[in-house]
Amino acid sequence: MQKKIAVLPGDGIGKEIVAGTVQVMQTIAEQFNHQFEFEYGCIGGEAIDVDGNPLPEETVSLCKNSDAILLGAVGGPKWDNNPPALRPEAGLLAIRKKMGLFANLRPVQAIPSLADASTLKKEVIDGVDLMIVRELTGGIYFGTPRERRIENGKELVVDTLSYTNEEIERIIRKAFDLAMIRRKKVTSVDKANVLESSRVWREIANNVAKDYPEVELEHMLVDNAAMQLIRNPKQFDVIVTENMFGDILSDEASMLTGSLGMLASASLSADGPGLYEPVHGSAPDIAGQNKANPLATILSAAMMLKYSFNLIEEGNTIEEAVNQVLEQGYRTADIADGAKYVLTTTEMVEQVIRQIKEI
Amino acid sequence: MQKKIAVLPGDGIGKEIVAGTVQVMQTIAEQFNHQFEFEYGCIGGEAIDVDGNPLPEETVSLCKNSDAILLGAVGGPKWDNNPPALRPEAGLLAIRKKMGLFANLRPVQAIPSLADASTLKKEVIDGVDLMIVRELTGGIYFGTPRERRIENGKELVVDTLSYTNEEIERIIRKAFDLAMIRRKKVTSVDKANVLESSRVWREIANNVAKDYPEVELEHMLVDNAAMQLIRNPKQFDVIVTENMFGDILSDEASMLTGSLGMLASASLSADGPGLYEPVHGSAPDIAGQNKANPLATILSAAMMLKYSFNLIEEGNTIEEAVNQVLEQGYRTADIADGAKYVLTTTEMVEQVIRQIKEI
Ligand SMILES: CC(C)[C@H](C(=O)O)[C@@H](O)C(=O)O
Ligand SMILES: CC(C)[C@H](C(=O)O)[C@@H](O)C(=O)O
Repeated sequence: MQKKIAVLPGDGIGKEIVAGTVQVMQTIAEQFNHQFEFEYGCIGGEAIDVDGNPLPEETVSLCKNSDAILLGAVGGPKWDNNPPALRPEAGLLAIRKKMGLFANLRPVQAIPSLADASTLKKEVIDGVDLMIVRELTGGIYFGTPRERRIENGKELVVDTLSYTNEEIERIIRKAFDLAMIRRKKVTSVDKANVLESSRVWREIANNVAKDYPEVELEHMLVDNAAMQLIRNPKQFDVIVTENMFGDILSDEASMLTGSLGMLASASLSADGPGLYEPVHGSAPDIAGQNKANPLATILSAAMMLKYSFNLIEEGNTIEEAVNQVLEQGYRTADIADGAKYVLTTTEMVEQVIRQIKEI
Repeated sequence: MQKKIAVLPGDGIGKEIVAGTVQVMQTIAEQFNHQFEFEYGCIGGEAIDVDGNPLPEETVSLCKNSDAILLGAVGGPKWDNNPPALRPEAGLLAIRKKMGLFANLRPVQAIPSLADASTLKKEVIDGVDLMIVRELTGGIYFGTPRERRIENGKELVVDTLSYTNEEIERIIRKAFDLAMIRRKKVTSVDKANVLESSRVWREIANNVAKDYPEVELEHMLVDNAAMQLIRNPKQFDVIVTENMFGDILSDEASMLTGSLGMLASASLSADGPGLYEPVHGSAPDIAGQNKANPLATILSAAMMLKYSFNLIEEGNTIEEAVNQVLEQGYRTADIADGAKYVLTTTEMVEQVIRQIKEI
């Protein structure tokens, strides 16, 4: 198989973790006889410095001409006081919107060898295997008006949560499709006792459910969901929710695994290339020190192989290699907590590559 | 001291837990030589049935003519399919708005004798003592437009998050005032990398902070806050945030104590009576069975004594009595988990009263 991958390392630790992940993908290409071509682009703070734009047009065309996108992370203190449109995160929001990446998939799986790293009790997280499906290009992230104004002589600020029925339906369908290849349960999270958009969301979910008689649909209020994720996370299979709720719940759920450093994500569009990135940020405090945990990005590449290229065995190979390396006791500093071997970023990448070759 | 208290038991277990709490308050009145007059009103489902309105005018005037309000809980399956304006929660939202209850205080304290009930590790929750200050009468709960419409031939739904600068400033001031009598730290939670309202929120927080040089102010993004509450809850003293974020984070934080059945809340206005209610709901599944845990409501009454009547010793007496009863091994079913004595609602109330008389 021949594939072209747009690589956007971004800022902070982005460069290091992406470099390692590209090596891992090259190993997979060799082992399985594929050709992956990597082409590099700018995004975030670096793009602001170079181009005055957190998402240069060049990067957009690179992405449009690729089969998938690998992203590191964006942001850093250097740009923190910039106006909103010239902040690294604006690049992230823009690439989601321009590439139509409406479906953000965030799997959360307990990793037995890392159970101690979680602040939750072992018996609570053992066996957790859930997937948060977050709407990524609508809602209060993009609705207008979003402005300051004067009303009746008072200073006022407004943001707008808006969704078309179409936008709601396609993300809910995506969740049901995923549930069909998992444990066939969808928890739709909303705030239907307060928001009109949630009431529409609930109606559409009920309608879509009719097309998936095998899938169990349950509705849950977002405040309760925030509680249930901590009380009994094993009850969940697929959770589907709107953009802001998904942002909050998926970061909360990351605590089930004990480390953000392990969490992968995929952002998918209707028919264009998907984007794969770790859930964590650019960690400017440890950037350039060869200390960052590359595993979330490596696991995001595994998602790319599966979801964008349908290379299931190849994706599984990466996931298995990561698990085995962890079981062998190898750790980066963020998950070190009494580990046998504390590795640098490049050393961790080498271990994963060694393990892939052994599988 | 002579005080008039509006009592709104509401639906489900509301009646039982409020009845017990009134008895506890009467005991306090006797022990400390106060006169508490209780007058009853309707709210929620019951009010819909009786009056066709989840918050009858009569209840509003009762509240306005009282020194404080004690609320049980509202809601139940009977009204779940009603139109939004005829649902029990509409009564809750309306009383907040009509009584100007803009500041919702939700203290979260680890209770050593209940540590096992939490799904978090003991060392993580030991010593947790935080207060969530949630804005309660603005934001996306009340902003307009909130409607379905057709735009460019597409069905669309809109909710509006709106705040006046004044609304933001008064809740942030409340948080700083509370921090001054606590550990002098305020964490202001927002989503300033996405929302314009959060940017205004952050500016105002920075301005208010200038009036409180002794208080440390930190800003935290809501997704990170959802994570930090589970990762390291001891870092927090006072958390202040807007309505919806506060709804989500305070329910999440309730898991630190292991049981919603223990969590009290106060909702305060600028100068009218405050409202006190448990954080939990009306639990229709166990209503009328004399099984419900009355402690969250009893602890809400303790907050009333302190915050509305400035009866600090009296409030502390209730809190101490509750702690001692728990240490003696008494439990209601929701927190029973291997307890010595599993009590009914009325038995738990009796124990608290016995203990108050002994203090
Ligand atoms: C950086 C920020 C705009 C972004 C978001 O809120 O979507 C991040 O938190 C994420 O979850 O990818
Ligand atoms: C019942 C509901 C409208 C309410 C809210 O969201 O405010 C409840 O969850 C709460 O926190 O008091």
